[in-house]
Amino acid sequence: MRLVQFHRHGDAGGIRVGVEQGEGLGVVDLKAFDPSMPSTMRELLELGDKGLECAQRALASSQCVVERSDIQLLAPVWRPEKVVCVGMNYRDHCLEQNAVIPKEPIIFSKFPSAITGPYDDIEVDWEVELAFVIGRRGKHIKEEEALSHVAGFTVANDVSARDWQMKRNGKQWLLGKTFDSFCPLGPALVTTDAVKDPHKLGIRCLVNGETVQSSNTDQMIFKTAALVTWVSKFVTLIPGDVFLTGTPPGVGVFRKPPVFLKKGDVVECQIDQLGSIINKVV
Amino acid sequence: MRLVQFHRHGDAGGIRVGVEQGEGLGVVDLKAFDPSMPSTMRELLELGDKGLECAQRALASSQCVVERSDIQLLAPVWRPEKVVCVGMNYRDHCLEQNAVIPKEPIIFSKFPSAITGPYDDIEVDWEVELAFVIGRRGKHIKEEEALSHVAGFTVANDVSARDWQMKRNGKQWLLGKTFDSFCPLGPALVTTDAVKDPHKLGIRCLVNGETVQSSNTDQMIFKTAALVTWVSKFVTLIPGDVFLTGTPPGVGVFRKPPVFLKKGDVVECQIDQLGSIINKVV
Repeated sequence: MRLVQFHRHGDAGGIRVGVEQGEGLGVVDLKAFDPSMPSTMRELLELGDKGLECAQRALASSQCVVERSDIQLLAPVWRPEKVVCVGMNYRDHCLEQNAVIPKEPIIFSKFPSAITGPYDDIEVDWEVELAFVIGRRGKHIKEEEALSHVAGFTVANDVSARDWQMKRNGKQWLLGKTFDSFCPLGPALVTTDAVKDPHKLGIRCLVNGETVQSSNTDQMIFKTAALVTWVSKFVTLIPGDVFLTGTPPGVGVFRKPPVFLKKGDVVECQIDQLGSIINKVV
Repeated sequence: MRLVQFHRHGDAGGIRVGVEQGEGLGVVDLKAFDPSMPSTMRELLELGDKGLECAQRALASSQCVVERSDIQLLAPVWRPEKVVCVGMNYRDHCLEQNAVIPKEPIIFSKFPSAITGPYDDIEVDWEVELAFVIGRRGKHIKEEEALSHVAGFTVANDVSARDWQMKRNGKQWLLGKTFDSFCPLGPALVTTDAVKDPHKLGIRCLVNGETVQSSNTDQMIFKTAALVTWVSKFVTLIPGDVFLTGTPPGVGVFRKPPVFLKKGDVVECQIDQLGSIINKVV
């Protein structure tokens, strides 16, 4: 299933949860199908299997379909408790920097206020990343059970202001990563059962149509299950928590000479089977 | 006013907001006084002046008072969108480490899941800190308007696992700061009007009754207004967001030899006019 959050043009009611009939196709409005269903993804995930089963029935019914032209797609999750990020998690990205391959995940974060929609405007350097969203609460989660805590996968752009990340703020990365709008997410939360192998997906970033990052999620050093297990040693994970799993090579700051985004540039982040998000720099 | 969150023993209804009649005295149950009032601090702050005025009337009424023995005090704010922390923000703490006094605030964060009650159990090294809570939404807030965005002040312990903070995780501080329970907060949110000068308060930490930190908030390099202005350059601040403003000297890791907390130790963090929080290490 491709779960989305959307806003209907001219609807004062605000945010709704839906199921895409396919990438870029019509969206089944979950609350229209079943008024007992919630209107945000975080609440839907909190319902567990009950919510997902209802979404499946809604999709199968082909009822309550809203046309794409009538809606604006939002980030698939809003206001999670946590946005957990992993640094230096692609072998080829480490090689690009002549950096040692880390023995443990390097975890940092963004504030939830950085999340923005899949087609909203952004500011600065790009980092296409595979993101996943927690669907079930847990602490000290074993690696063999980790995937059962993951609701699904989506595409993220870990937008970064490199001067703030690397040179200022005592080299703590947070500030350079968490400006409002620095976490475009979407277009859909593709449920775990609908992704063949999340660690064998082509992953690309295009700036103004030119490919600047092109790799495969098989380059990830710490994969989904390992990251869930690692982070849940420290903190309780809850439904809606978002993980950004690190970026492949080709970011602007490590180019020779370095390249940064400028006003008007269009950044497209694509991951096979998940879709693409397109954000314009303002 | 001293605003608190509490739980009534044996009450399945869960969290409530109240007003202390004085430090350690009875608590006026806001929702019992006015059923239209919310039951969490974050929602109360979102109401703005309307909520605070109702709290004032409730306090003045001396009605709906719950005895201390009937309640458990919780952290004054739960599940804020952000926990913003400031590193190296006391002159005397910088001197203790032979560190350069920073020219800009060093900002890092904890996940909201680290917040725990003023008397709950914790794990590791201590850092008493003046905390403040945002009461009004804003971005790019001017310094002269910054205090009007602050709802009030409280006491925090920025509990830290030093090995994780300083030696592991690529020197990104987040993990060592964000274990579940690493942000005891309380006992009350003391509203801005009720604090004489937040930057002239004695601030102390006692471990098993022995004073290990003793300084004054006049040592703070970046004060409340400057921090609000700085952080709001990057992110939109919303009601409930918590700031921890840095710790004075005397933390365990910089002692010679270093001292760390062990099971059973009792840590008390005190700030004049605000009160104290007491947490046992487990």
